[in-house]
Amino acid sequence: MTDHGHSQQEITERINAPPGRGVLRDVVYGGIDGSVTTFAIVAGVAGAGLSPFVIVALGLANVLADGFSMAAGNYSGTKAEIDNIHRIRAIEEQHIRLYPDGERKEVREILTQKGLSGRVLDEATDEITSNHDNWINLMIEGEYGLGSVDPHPLKAAMATFFAFLVAGMIPLLPFLFSIEGAFTVSAWMTAGVFFAIGAMKSRWSLAPWWRSGAETLLIGGLAAGIAFLVGSLFHP
Amino acid sequence: MTDHGHSQQEITERINAPPGRGVLRDVVYGGIDGSVTTFAIVAGVAGAGLSPFVIVALGLANVLADGFSMAAGNYSGTKAEIDNIHRIRAIEEQHIRLYPDGERKEVREILTQKGLSGRVLDEATDEITSNHDNWINLMIEGEYGLGSVDPHPLKAAMATFFAFLVAGMIPLLPFLFSIEGAFTVSAWMTAGVFFAIGAMKSRWSLAPWWRSGAETLLIGGLAAGIAFLVGSLFHP
Repeated sequence: MTDHGHSQQEITERINAPPGRGVLRDVVYGGIDGSVTTFAIVAGVAGAGLSPFVIVALGLANVLADGFSMAAGNYSGTKAEIDNIHRIRAIEEQHIRLYPDGERKEVREILTQKGLSGRVLDEATDEITSNHDNWINLMIEGEYGLGSVDPHPLKAAMATFFAFLVAGMIPLLPFLFSIEGAFTVSAWMTAGVFFAIGAMKSRWSLAPWWRSGAETLLIGGLAAGIAFLVGSLFHP
Repeated sequence: MTDHGHSQQEITERINAPPGRGVLRDVVYGGIDGSVTTFAIVAGVAGAGLSPFVIVALGLANVLADGFSMAAGNYSGTKAEIDNIHRIRAIEEQHIRLYPDGERKEVREILTQKGLSGRVLDEATDEITSNHDNWINLMIEGEYGLGSVDPHPLKAAMATFFAFLVAGMIPLLPFLFSIEGAFTVSAWMTAGVFFAIGAMKSRWSLAPWWRSGAETLLIGGLAAGIAFLVGSLFHP
C-alpha cells in the first residue's frame, strides 16, 4: 500500500482493466422491484383468508417467474447497449477509412476538450491517429461519451435475478413462519428492505447511510403503496 | 451535410455534448418485462372463467402498479450510479490535492494507454494536470472506465414506465375487444411484441432486424413460458 490508500500496482491494474460501471444499478433496481412486487402479491392475497402456506407458495412462484423475466429483460437491454457500441465502432471504422481528414479533425476537437492545445495538440493528434484502435477508442469516448468498459449482459442479468430473489423473499418470511399478524410484520419488513438497500448503496455514495436509507424507503414505500392501493381495488 | 453522413456542425455539437448511452437499455428491459408480466397475469386468470372486463381491469392495474415499481427501481439504481460517480470524483479530488505526484503518474499511464509516448506524453501530461477539471475527468475515464456523460435517473425511469406500459398493454387487447379465443390471440400478440422489440432495437445494432427479432422472441418467449408454467402450478 502507498500512502494514498491503494498500491501503485493496484492502480496500474485498474488502468489496464478499469472496473467500469459494474452491477450497482442492477442490484438496486432488482432489489427494489422484487420487494415491491412480492409485497403487492402478499397484500393482494392476505385479505382473502388463504393459508400461510399458499401465500408463501404463490409468492415464491411469482418471485421466481418475475425474477427470471427481469433477468431476461435486463440481459436483452444490456446486450442492446453492447450491440450499439459495436455498431458505433463499425461506423467510425468506415469513416476513418473513407474520410480520414474529417475524423482527424474530430480527434483534435476531442483532445482540445481534454485540455490539450498548440503544438502538443497537433503532435498528440498525429500520434493517436497513427494507430487504428487508439483512434477509434478515442472517438467512442469523446464523440459518444461512452465508457471504455463494455457492460456485461450475463452479469447484469444474474445480479438482477439474485437481488430480486433475495429482496423479494423477505416479505414472505412472516408467512413462512406463520407469525401472528403476519401481514403487518411483512409490511414492516418490506420497509426494512427498502431502508437496507438504501443504506447499503450509500457505500458507493457520499450520502450518509441513514439519508440514503430514508430516501430509498420513501421511493420504495411510495411504489409499494401504489401497488397496494391498486391491488386492493381488485381484492376488496 | 458533408459527404460522410453528418455535418461538421453536428459532430462539433456531439463532441461538446456527447449523447452518452441513452435509454436503449431501459426501453428494451421495461418492454420485455412488461409484456412477460402481463401475459403471466392473463395466463393465470384466463382459465378461471373471469369476464374479459375483469381480466383487462386486473391486467391494467398490474401494468400500472408494476410499471411504477420498475420506474422506482430504475430511478434509484441509476441514481446510485451517479452517486458513485460523484464519490469517485471526490476521491480523485482529494488524491490530487494530497498526492499530486502519484496522480500525475496515473495520468501518464492513462495517456500511454491512449497511444501517446515520449516527449508528447510528457507535455500532454503537464498540460492536462495544469487544469483541475481536465485532470479529474481523465481519471474518471481512464482509471474507472466510465463514460463522460452521466446517466439520467428521471429519463431512465420514464423510459422504463412507458415501455412497460405500452408493451404490457398489448397482451390485454384481445380481451379488451372480447375477441373469440382471446387467450390464444393474446399469446400470439405477446410473441409479436417480443419480435417487434427485437426488430426495433436492431436499428442500434449490426444484426439484421429478423435475427434480432428472433433472438428477443426466444428470450422473451422463454421468460413468458416459465412465468406461464409457474403460474399454472397455482391455478390448476
